Amino acid sequence: MNKQILSTQNPLIKQLVQLKDKSRERKKTGLFLIEGEREIRLALKGDYELDTILFYPELFSQEQLNNLTAKQLNVIEISKEVYEKLAHRETTEGVLAVAKCKEHTLSDLNITSKNPLILVAEAPEKPGNIGALLRTADAANVDAVMIANPKTDLYNPNIIRSSVGCVFTNNIAMGSTTEIIEFLKSKHIHVYCAALQASVNYNTQDFTKPSAIIVGTEATGLSDEWLKSSTQNIIIPMQGDIDSMNVSVAAGILIFEAKRQRHFK
Amino acid sequence: MNKQILSTQNPLIKQLVQLKDKSRERKKTGLFLIEGEREIRLALKGDYELDTILFYPELFSQEQLNNLTAKQLNVIEISKEVYEKLAHRETTEGVLAVAKCKEHTLSDLNITSKNPLILVAEAPEKPGNIGALLRTADAANVDAVMIANPKTDLYNPNIIRSSVGCVFTNNIAMGSTTEIIEFLKSKHIHVYCAALQASVNYNTQDFTKPSAIIVGTEATGLSDEWLKSSTQNIIIPMQGDIDSMNVSVAAGILIFEAKRQRHFK
Repeated sequence: MNKQILSTQNPLIKQLVQLKDKSRERKKTGLFLIEGEREIRLALKGDYELDTILFYPELFSQEQLNNLTAKQLNVIEISKEVYEKLAHRETTEGVLAVAKCKEHTLSDLNITSKNPLILVAEAPEKPGNIGALLRTADAANVDAVMIANPKTDLYNPNIIRSSVGCVFTNNIAMGSTTEIIEFLKSKHIHVYCAALQASVNYNTQDFTKPSAIIVGTEATGLSDEWLKSSTQNIIIPMQGDIDSMNVSVAAGILIFEAKRQRHFK
Repeated sequence: MNKQILSTQNPLIKQLVQLKDKSRERKKTGLFLIEGEREIRLALKGDYELDTILFYPELFSQEQLNNLTAKQLNVIEISKEVYEKLAHRETTEGVLAVAKCKEHTLSDLNITSKNPLILVAEAPEKPGNIGALLRTADAANVDAVMIANPKTDLYNPNIIRSSVGCVFTNNIAMGSTTEIIEFLKSKHIHVYCAALQASVNYNTQDFTKPSAIIVGTEATGLSDEWLKSSTQNIIIPMQGDIDSMNVSVAAGILIFEAKRQRHFK
């Protein structure tokens, strides 16, 4: 028999609501909440350690649960009310998991390619943009995504959702701008900063050597520290009335120019 | 002396709140609300007809108002409470305008280039994606953006905001998929559908001739009607765990490959 929780007033459920809503709670406990079968599968594939699975049997059957993972997990049957309290999206999938956050340190990063292509975003804030960046990085199969001076907790439910699970499939490292620059220099990876100053058109650069493409925020661009460490600043020529492009679109254009030059290998 | 409205209970203010919140109200009246000086300037530049300007003098001075436009407009001074009731964003700009919607018919579309590059999106829904598409279209200075089978009212405040005003600077037409296909065929514009079926890598195509790049929704892709009318289906090679990319990122990659081939002219 599975353990059952039927009341939204249960202390564990109250704690899980905190986990969903509060970055601070995720930091304190090192845990986060995953919603949906597909996302849970991707997290397992990405070697995330699950702590507990919660399911509402009328939407998600014991058989579906058995198919999801063979691991011995803490399994809890929940009521409709509890499920709706925990679910972030308006879905009716009926399954959630509590998982352990990864550290995402630079030293843990495993880059096997001898000719890596890396996407770095400095201080991205909007969950939707971070999600789109992670989808692009997954599609391009970049060797790593690095988030410099992170402002937003990676396990924010809006990032998990807008990344459609790519937060679990990418090789992600987080660190200060200083640490990431040191890391890239130590590996002899060229640094291409998307910037307006002293820039050449992005398509004139050779990205077929070990390359990192660095994008900043829409509001303030990249910090001086990045610009000082740049192998070459690159720019997407803008020809409209408004000098502005969504940061995840700009990153997509730059990364796929590199992929094109590398013949999508 | 300007007219003054100090009460949020004023019938005009109540109507303007409807205009902000309800697509139906915008359709009925043919009017919409613009927030912010920059957006109002862009709308004037894009030949939008303003009906009324509302300003809260402690945030936006009479002098700023005089600098905004020389046209004789209906000007209303509003109180802080009224301003906060009408403002969609958490800004403190203090100025709003009521403007007339454009029709965006295909027949009104003025394409002057002999070698046009056009972006078509079929049935896009999310305001954030539509905003990002319009920013990309502006940056690439495409000859037109077409929205086929539109699902979302273009003057939704979230589209205006996420497009950072590019909704006013682009040459936009809306119509059914059938109408837009007929239009493109009549102008001998090649149709490149972003699709999985019978596709070649996007970068192997020649976009230097009159070209329209067509993107569908993330959920269902393009309709059969588009696929049947395609000159050539194109695909962005995906090499990750998840076959998925944000639609505005995909459109950016495709449009800027065309721009690259055209030497950004």
